[in-house]
Amino acid sequence: MRVAVVGASGYAGLELVRIVLRHPELELVAVTSEKRAGVAVGEAFPALRGLLELDFEPADASALAGRIDVAFTALPHGASAALVAELYKAGVSVLDIGADFRLRNRETFTQWYGEHQAPELFGRAIYGLPEVYGEELKTARLVAAPGCYPTCVLLPALPFIREGWVERSGIQVTAISGVSGAGRTLDDGFLYAELEGNARAYKVAAHRHIPEIEQELSLAAGEDVAITFVPHLIPASRGMLATIALRALPGSDALDPDAAHGLLSRVYADAPFVRVLPIGESPSIQSVRGSNFCDVAVATDPHNNTLLVLSAIDNLVKGAGGQAVQCLNWMRGWPETTGLLEAPLLP
Amino acid sequence: MRVAVVGASGYAGLELVRIVLRHPELELVAVTSEKRAGVAVGEAFPALRGLLELDFEPADASALAGRIDVAFTALPHGASAALVAELYKAGVSVLDIGADFRLRNRETFTQWYGEHQAPELFGRAIYGLPEVYGEELKTARLVAAPGCYPTCVLLPALPFIREGWVERSGIQVTAISGVSGAGRTLDDGFLYAELEGNARAYKVAAHRHIPEIEQELSLAAGEDVAITFVPHLIPASRGMLATIALRALPGSDALDPDAAHGLLSRVYADAPFVRVLPIGESPSIQSVRGSNFCDVAVATDPHNNTLLVLSAIDNLVKGAGGQAVQCLNWMRGWPETTGLLEAPLLP
Amino acid sequence: MRVAVVGASGYAGLELVRIVLRHPELELVAVTSEKRAGVAVGEAFPALRGLLELDFEPADASALAGRIDVAFTALPHGASAALVAELYKAGVSVLDIGADFRLRNRETFTQWYGEHQAPELFGRAIYGLPEVYGEELKTARLVAAPGCYPTCVLLPALPFIREGWVERSGIQVTAISGVSGAGRTLDDGFLYAELEGNARAYKVAAHRHIPEIEQELSLAAGEDVAITFVPHLIPASRGMLATIALRALPGSDALDPDAAHGLLSRVYADAPFVRVLPIGESPSIQSVRGSNFCDVAVATDPHNNTLLVLSAIDNLVKGAGGQAVQCLNWMRGWPETTGLLEAPLLP
Amino acid sequence: MRVAVVGASGYAGLELVRIVLRHPELELVAVTSEKRAGVAVGEAFPALRGLLELDFEPADASALAGRIDVAFTALPHGASAALVAELYKAGVSVLDIGADFRLRNRETFTQWYGEHQAPELFGRAIYGLPEVYGEELKTARLVAAPGCYPTCVLLPALPFIREGWVERSGIQVTAISGVSGAGRTLDDGFLYAELEGNARAYKVAAHRHIPEIEQELSLAAGEDVAITFVPHLIPASRGMLATIALRALPGSDALDPDAAHGLLSRVYADAPFVRVLPIGESPSIQSVRGSNFCDVAVATDPHNNTLLVLSAIDNLVKGAGGQAVQCLNWMRGWPETTGLLEAPLLP
Repeated sequence: MRVAVVGASGYAGLELVRIVLRHPELELVAVTSEKRAGVAVGEAFPALRGLLELDFEPADASALAGRIDVAFTALPHGASAALVAELYKAGVSVLDIGADFRLRNRETFTQWYGEHQAPELFGRAIYGLPEVYGEELKTARLVAAPGCYPTCVLLPALPFIREGWVERSGIQVTAISGVSGAGRTLDDGFLYAELEGNARAYKVAAHRHIPEIEQELSLAAGEDVAITFVPHLIPASRGMLATIALRALPGSDALDPDAAHGLLSRVYADAPFVRVLPIGESPSIQSVRGSNFCDVAVATDPHNNTLLVLSAIDNLVKGAGGQAVQCLNWMRGWPETTGLLEAPLLP
Repeated sequence: MRVAVVGASGYAGLELVRIVLRHPELELVAVTSEKRAGVAVGEAFPALRGLLELDFEPADASALAGRIDVAFTALPHGASAALVAELYKAGVSVLDIGADFRLRNRETFTQWYGEHQAPELFGRAIYGLPEVYGEELKTARLVAAPGCYPTCVLLPALPFIREGWVERSGIQVTAISGVSGAGRTLDDGFLYAELEGNARAYKVAAHRHIPEIEQELSLAAGEDVAITFVPHLIPASRGMLATIALRALPGSDALDPDAAHGLLSRVYADAPFVRVLPIGESPSIQSVRGSNFCDVAVATDPHNNTLLVLSAIDNLVKGAGGQAVQCLNWMRGWPETTGLLEAPLLP
Repeated sequence: MRVAVVGASGYAGLELVRIVLRHPELELVAVTSEKRAGVAVGEAFPALRGLLELDFEPADASALAGRIDVAFTALPHGASAALVAELYKAGVSVLDIGADFRLRNRETFTQWYGEHQAPELFGRAIYGLPEVYGEELKTARLVAAPGCYPTCVLLPALPFIREGWVERSGIQVTAISGVSGAGRTLDDGFLYAELEGNARAYKVAAHRHIPEIEQELSLAAGEDVAITFVPHLIPASRGMLATIALRALPGSDALDPDAAHGLLSRVYADAPFVRVLPIGESPSIQSVRGSNFCDVAVATDPHNNTLLVLSAIDNLVKGAGGQAVQCLNWMRGWPETTGLLEAPLLP
Repeated sequence: MRVAVVGASGYAGLELVRIVLRHPELELVAVTSEKRAGVAVGEAFPALRGLLELDFEPADASALAGRIDVAFTALPHGASAALVAELYKAGVSVLDIGADFRLRNRETFTQWYGEHQAPELFGRAIYGLPEVYGEELKTARLVAAPGCYPTCVLLPALPFIREGWVERSGIQVTAISGVSGAGRTLDDGFLYAELEGNARAYKVAAHRHIPEIEQELSLAAGEDVAITFVPHLIPASRGMLATIALRALPGSDALDPDAAHGLLSRVYADAPFVRVLPIGESPSIQSVRGSNFCDVAVATDPHNNTLLVLSAIDNLVKGAGGQAVQCLNWMRGWPETTGLLEAPLLP
């Protein structure tokens, strides 16, 4: 199956290149980058020298359409929709890593991202969280891979919201992200000297992933769910943690750690990339780095009526390109783990 | 004034040495370390070569008593109480950086720390948070400097609890700490290769600083306050962030950012080390690293009825030795900033 | 082919596990660790949960012999030789990552490492640098995989020594290593807080890899070669750089960058893991991290009569387990890159 | 004494601000930054909030001249010379942290830096290495503070060159630098995600500090000295190491570690910021971080006829602003350590 990675020179795009190269059913035939068009991949990124013989090309749907079966698009929001639409109409299966097709409510999209650039396709994508939408993915041709934070929050939290063990408001989510989540952004704040030994919250209760998380939690709950979301930047290239505080509902098992652990274990019994940690362990970035795993755990705090769920992913793999490839595996009927069962890099 | 630093070879003790050396009213006359007794400070710690001419000595109250006016004790909990008691009885002013004298309830202490080693002094120390207990410190001779997490949580949260703007239960606190908070612990988890680019929660809802935080919040509230506390370890040597989610009470101004900012500004108008950040800014470790500042900020999330307060300190300065010296400045009537107004190390 | 990793809980051993799991011709049937015997791999190392179903077992040659065809031994020097001998005598092919079988001169070995524990096998191993000893490896059953520093120094330097372009004494080698080279050593100096933002030289002109490097350079030169070797520790988990200053011999092409680049390019034309960088580029750890590549480059300084050769490897892959697997590929006649052509982790 | 820091928003400039604030004889009355003109220092750099009440202003010599006695200029080379000349002519004492006044040979300057912007002052500055030029500094009004690499190389190497113990060619210098040496440069290569766990050589045998180092070594030798210089970038915000390989001359004591150590000890007996480490220790960044110390050490490698000298500095202190303040202390006749005897930040 012939594959293009569109926007291949960003961190998410490069990780897709890495994964596609390793995938036994995929052949990488095109990589795009406006800035580096005409440059050999190995020249632009010496790490990849000797591994593939492609030059970057501009992202041109008509030039790509006949040569590929599948496109992974890893472009900034806004820049993605029009190209995705063109590729889709040309018959290409498209898995979009960006934000343009994740939301279901047009008004909400406009409020957070501005005008949509391909309104005719708005709402047509399958939300690419295979642990939830696996069946729908089987027939999908347009997939919106979830954001990194939504992936990290939804997998551990959804079961408790869906089952009605916890309150649907007052949910408190803090998250920690490595800096690659911001892409290769040339901004003072992302310089090494500014981040070594540093950390800070950012976009406090104002991050664009909030409506995406609330959308999926609300769908699971059957009613509106509200979260407060505080992401933090830490000195790490990759990786992401979420710590989610849920208020136990009276009569539920939410404060019983065995019950909470049991629920997650049942829900994810057949999910090869969700590892439910034993009670007492906490997820860590190191344990998932470079892999498609999402590690989840529970802890309870009865004295404050709180159920805590915690999770870790590699934002560039399970939070981006790895998850998109996992979706493609579902779409093609390949084993879900094809090309993705890599051990984390340790240390 | 002649000073000893007891337990001077740990990270908190070494930072005390750094600060005492810089303080114009203090003369460092003794440093103790069991493990390094007899070794010159500059030999054990090449960074300090040429800055002081002391050898480490064992911690012996009778050997110290006649030679010093003030002792800073930076020992593991349990190891501290008996020595503190001896020094105190010998007429020395003692500022204890450890946990042995912070709690007011004996039963709570026993539950979290085991038997107290100097019960006759239990409950006799002033809690060394000068922004709250400055007046009491003026006549103190035994001070229990707060833990790093309590300092970082209490300074931003206390005013809102005290004024009754927010609920006294359901409080959600997440924190991020650099690794020096664990001391120079020889444990796999603190090795460089295990922490580079890594992060994880630890002691989830089970950290010993919980009762200390709840004690002071409850005193301010006049009723029991309950928090859920989740600390995280990140790849940083120093520094600490706290992110605290408080539920607004109806009728309060808690969801009005200007009002919330105004309250902090008023409460800390005369506190030289508490910097209230403008609305929209977040505290960072970098901005306080190496300094005695505590930066605090507010943000509101009306859609989820939540007031967020955030803070940053250097765990070894405002979270340990710096705060102890700040207490001593109060005790002696010196200007509060004496020896402490160092600019953060940037970058 | 059934494989055991002996000493699988150290950093080099864990990396071998990672690589063996990925290798299409190998089946991992045993992993040993004295300290963690009886513990499931995924329990001891949560990163590996779900990827293999083995428990650690003690390293017992008789218990292993019948179950395996190949053993990778990743033990501290001294601890390795006796076990290697037993496995070897039992008919197992052994690839030793340790130092016990690398040197050819018994006296030199004793001087740097003490008494050899399996003298009957001393000098019997093939030195596992496939770019030099590929042919010998085809019939080997005992392989001594080179040290990380020797690999990093020999690949770029050997051609110039062999061809006689440079002086055989006065060679100056500085190297930079990530901390995993020291293993999971519980020593103050390897704690995160001691290494963040830190760097220092260590074992200056006294590192055990010196005789190994000089041995191979001398064999290539046909006469004694002397180097001064200064390794440095930097804040990185993985990776290694070498910078080697060679004095140009009159009449040679050593000061002509094109000629020097040409020599390396010719020598490594068929070596899939040695990438000769274009003139003007420098190797970096990032470009080889997690991969089996050795990137090499040349630069000239005619005003000081110096040819510089530079290189980078991942110390745990090309400097340890990856190279051992590369040797096994040669031994079995599989394509040299089998299981090893992984793209570096970027970023 | 009224002081301006010109170019105060770069890393070197900010460090000067930090030091000047702490210096008992200096009053900071102006800070300049073109980009941030009109902005309060504490607003631009939250770390400095509450420590000074100045706004940045444009660098205008006429606006500054009447208000200051001393200017520290921390501008990119080329941008510095004209302004320095104006300030100098207006009677201000100028200590330039940049490269414009360090070289003595005009042709060499032009070759490495282009046309000089204040040729009438070329060659008129005292080279601000107080351990060598202390006497000259007493009457100086224009000082060219040395570069960071020259400081780090010259202090340990000069005595051996001056005394004629080692050859004056074939000198091999490798160095390791933290990233703040490059300033707050917005370039891909300085992003956190590109540098975490990474390292690489750069400007191999082509760095602008080469002529400066060779100039001072040649002056000490009384003949031309040639070095090969290979700097490396590592993941550290601050700090610098140099490792210098010198060939012992027959008949000298260069291979006797006690003699070599003795020479350094004698030369620097009265230099409060040069700490000669005991034989067997290596300098580290951590031991000098945030301080004005230069730690130096020797090691010998008789089997390769090599004397190694090693050193460490904080590039922003002894390699920039701290050294400039040390020069000012000499110029004014204040004790050399005034305002500079800060303990390194540990950890």
